[in-house]
Amino acid sequence: MELDYANMMSRCIGDKGLDMPKYPQSAFETVVSGLGKGWQEWSVLPTQKEIDEIISFCTPICASADSVVVLGIGGSALGAAAIAEALLHLRHNELASEKRKAPKFYVEDNIDPERMNALLDVIDVGNSYFIVTTKSGETSETLSQFLIVYDILTSRLGERAKEHIIAITTEGKGTLYNIAVKEGFKTFFVPSGVGGRFSVFSPVGLVPLACVGIDINALISGAKKGAEHSVCPELRNNIAFTMAALSISAYWQGRNINVMMPYADSLKLMSDFFAQLWGESLGKKENTAGDIVNLGQTPVKALGVTDQHSQIQLYTEGPYDKIVTFLKVKEFRSTRVIPADKRIDGLDFLKGHTLNELIGAELEATAFALKKAGRMNMTLTLDRVDAESIGELVAVFMYETAYAGAMLGVDTYNQPGVEEGKRATFAVMGRQGYEDKLKEIKTTFDDYKIMRD
Amino acid sequence: MELDYANMMSRCIGDKGLDMPKYPQSAFETVVSGLGKGWQEWSVLPTQKEIDEIISFCTPICASADSVVVLGIGGSALGAAAIAEALLHLRHNELASEKRKAPKFYVEDNIDPERMNALLDVIDVGNSYFIVTTKSGETSETLSQFLIVYDILTSRLGERAKEHIIAITTEGKGTLYNIAVKEGFKTFFVPSGVGGRFSVFSPVGLVPLACVGIDINALISGAKKGAEHSVCPELRNNIAFTMAALSISAYWQGRNINVMMPYADSLKLMSDFFAQLWGESLGKKENTAGDIVNLGQTPVKALGVTDQHSQIQLYTEGPYDKIVTFLKVKEFRSTRVIPADKRIDGLDFLKGHTLNELIGAELEATAFALKKAGRMNMTLTLDRVDAESIGELVAVFMYETAYAGAMLGVDTYNQPGVEEGKRATFAVMGRQGYEDKLKEIKTTFDDYKIMRD
Repeated sequence: MELDYANMMSRCIGDKGLDMPKYPQSAFETVVSGLGKGWQEWSVLPTQKEIDEIISFCTPICASADSVVVLGIGGSALGAAAIAEALLHLRHNELASEKRKAPKFYVEDNIDPERMNALLDVIDVGNSYFIVTTKSGETSETLSQFLIVYDILTSRLGERAKEHIIAITTEGKGTLYNIAVKEGFKTFFVPSGVGGRFSVFSPVGLVPLACVGIDINALISGAKKGAEHSVCPELRNNIAFTMAALSISAYWQGRNINVMMPYADSLKLMSDFFAQLWGESLGKKENTAGDIVNLGQTPVKALGVTDQHSQIQLYTEGPYDKIVTFLKVKEFRSTRVIPADKRIDGLDFLKGHTLNELIGAELEATAFALKKAGRMNMTLTLDRVDAESIGELVAVFMYETAYAGAMLGVDTYNQPGVEEGKRATFAVMGRQGYEDKLKEIKTTFDDYKIMRD
Repeated sequence: MELDYANMMSRCIGDKGLDMPKYPQSAFETVVSGLGKGWQEWSVLPTQKEIDEIISFCTPICASADSVVVLGIGGSALGAAAIAEALLHLRHNELASEKRKAPKFYVEDNIDPERMNALLDVIDVGNSYFIVTTKSGETSETLSQFLIVYDILTSRLGERAKEHIIAITTEGKGTLYNIAVKEGFKTFFVPSGVGGRFSVFSPVGLVPLACVGIDINALISGAKKGAEHSVCPELRNNIAFTMAALSISAYWQGRNINVMMPYADSLKLMSDFFAQLWGESLGKKENTAGDIVNLGQTPVKALGVTDQHSQIQLYTEGPYDKIVTFLKVKEFRSTRVIPADKRIDGLDFLKGHTLNELIGAELEATAFALKKAGRMNMTLTLDRVDAESIGELVAVFMYETAYAGAMLGVDTYNQPGVEEGKRATFAVMGRQGYEDKLKEIKTTFDDYKIMRD
C-alpha cells in the first residue's frame, strides 16, 4: 500500500494547497489509548478459533446453497457487500453455477417491495440461506424482511425452515435474539463495543463472506497488517493518520466535500463503505465538550474513469470546496489487449496497448489535471485486489475515521441524529404511543405544492 | 408529478430556510428563447418517423439477441442505463430468458480490464449486438472497447461481424464515422446541437432502449408532457423552474451540496443521471461574461431507505451545507405484505402492513426529521414508474439544469475542464507530439509518499 499526497500540498499545487500537514499528536493518543475499550472494541480482531468456527459452519453452505442472502441495512450490510464485490467475479451471480463455485450472493439492504419481489424471482428460496443481521435486534427494515422470508421458507420446507436462517445479533437481548432462541436458529453474536459501521471484521461481515468462499483468514491477516501500520507512532509514516490529518486540515480550510474515486470496478462499493464510515462518524451536531458545532465532511462516491465524463468538469473548474482521493490498483487480476486491427485506420496510440495501461494512464492524467487546476488530491495505491489487500484497506479506512473524529473533537461512534426519523416512522406506521408525533408530522403548509398531470 | 417544497422554506423549517423562492424571470427567457437552437437542440424531440425507424430496426434484435451491449461513457451511456434500470425487471439479466422476453442488457461505461473480461464470461458474443456510441467519434475509451469487441466478433463470425455493430455518432466526420462507412455498420446520428449529457432522447438513448423492448413511444410522450409544463410561463406552477430556483437560491446561501435521494431501487441510477447533468453543466470556472467565478453545486447520490443508515446522521446534524431532494413513487408496480406470523412475538406495528407502506412511511419520517433539524429538503413525487413518467422526469431534469445554468450565468453546455486530462492521457499513452506534456506530468515531489508493506 502506498499513499502519494504531493497534490495536496501548496508546494505542488499552489496557494490553494495545504502548507504542511498538521500532525495533531493528541488525536493519535486519544484513539490509540482507547483501542479495545468502549466503542473501540472494533480494533480487537477475531481469534483463530472464532474464524475457524465461522469457516466450519459456512463451508457446507458455500458448497451446496443456491444463494446466500444478507438481510440487513447500513453497517449490517455494506461491509460484506463491498468486500464481496471486490473479491468475487464482477458478474458473479450471472455465471453458470459450475463456473461460480459458490452460491449466488445478495445483500438486500433496502425494503423496496419491487426489489424483494425481484429477488424472489431469481433465487431458489428453499435452497437459500438468509443471514439476518441487526445488532440491536430491533431494526424494522430487517425484521420485516425476515418475516417475509421466514413465511415463505416455512411454507416450502416446514420444520426445516429454521435451518435456513442465521441470526447475527447481540447475545441475550432484543427481538431477533428472542426469536432465534425460540425458533432454534443458528446464531452468531456482535461484540457489545462494536458499532454497525465498524463491524465488518466481526461475524457481521465474516459469516456472509465465508458463505461465498472468501478467504477470511487472508482478510483478517490483511486487517492485522493495516492495523499495525495504522498505529505506527511515527506519524509521517502512518498512512491512516496522514490521510485523516490531510482531510481534516482541508476541511478546516473550507473543503467540506471528500470524494473517494476508485479506478477499478471491483472497488466501486468501497467508496460506499468509506462514505458510511466518514459520513455517519463525523457528521455531528455536538462535540465531545457538548458545544453545538454542526461538523462533518460530506463523502462523495465516484468511479474512474466513468465519472471523468460526468463529474471531473465540476471537480476541475467548480468551487475549491473538495478533496479527491483516488484509489489505484497497481496490477489488475487480468489483462485485456486492445488489438492492432489493420482494417481500422488511426487509433495508433491505443493499438497494441492494454486496457490496463489505458485506465492507469487516465488516473495519472486526471490527478495531473486536477493538480494543474490547483485542486487537492491524493492517490492511495493497492498492489493488487485480493483478500489480504482489501482487509488492509478496510482497516486503514476505520483507523483513518477514528483519527478524523478525534481531530474534529466529536464522538465518532454515536448517531443521535437518526432517532427522530425512527420515532417518526413508528408514528406514520401507526404504532401505539406515537399519536402526537403523527399529528406533528401531518401539520404542514399546502402553499408550496405544485401538481402537474 | 408533484413537487412539495414546504421544507425548503423558512416559514416551515425556521431561519435556515429560504424566505421566498426567487423567480428570476430573465433565466426563464434566456432558456426558452433559445430552445431548439445552438446547444439547445436537445429540446427538439424525435419525430414519429424517426421513432418508427428505430423501432423497426431494433425489434428483430430484441426478439433474437442474447445480449445488447452499449459501449460508451458519460452522456453516451448514463441515460440509457438509468432508464433501463427504471423500466426493466430489477434483476433483468438474471432472469431465465423465457421470463425476460428481451436480451440481457449491459452498459459498459468503464475500461477496467477485469470488467471487460467479466462481461465476455457471461455473454454469447456471437449472438450479441454492440451499440458503439461516441458523438465526437474519437472517445478513447469507447474506441478501445470497440477494437476489442470487433476483433472477437470477427474471429467468431467472419464477414458477418459487421452486422453486430451499431454505430451512433456524428454524421460525416470523426474516426467512428469513417470506420462505420468503411466496414458497413448500421449507423444512427446524433444531431449536432445535442451534447452528450442531453442526448438520451436522441438515438443515443432510444436505440439501446428499443433493443430491450422499452416502449420509446411512451417515453417520448412523457418527455413531451414534461417539456410542456417545464416551459409554462407561470413560474410558480413550473416544477422544473421552481426546483432550479430553489436549488440555486440555496446555493447562494451556502448550500454547495445537492443530494438526490430516490426511495425506490428502480430510480437509483436516476440520481447518477441527474448528477451528471447538474455537475458537468453547472461546474464552471468562467461565467458567460468571461469572469472567473468557479461556480457549481456538487451533486450527491443517495438511496432511501438504505442511506438513512449511512448518510442521514450527517444530513441531520452536520453543517448546513446541503439540500436534499427526495424522489418518491406513489404506487409501486408490485406489493409485498409483511406476514402476521403468530409464532413471532412483538413486531405488531409491522405485521400485516406492506413493504410499500413501510418505505413510504420512512420517506415521510425522514423528510420530517430533516425539517425538524432545520434542513432544507423537497419531495418530487411520481405517480408510478413507467416509460411515460420516466420520460417526463428526465425532461424535467434537463429543463431544471438549463434554468439553473442560466440563473448561475454560466455556459450550461460546454466542458472545457476535461481537456487537460485528455491531453495528459495522450501523453501518458505515448502519443506523438505530447512529449513535453509527459515530462511535465512526470515532474513531481517524492517527499510526500508513504509506502507500507
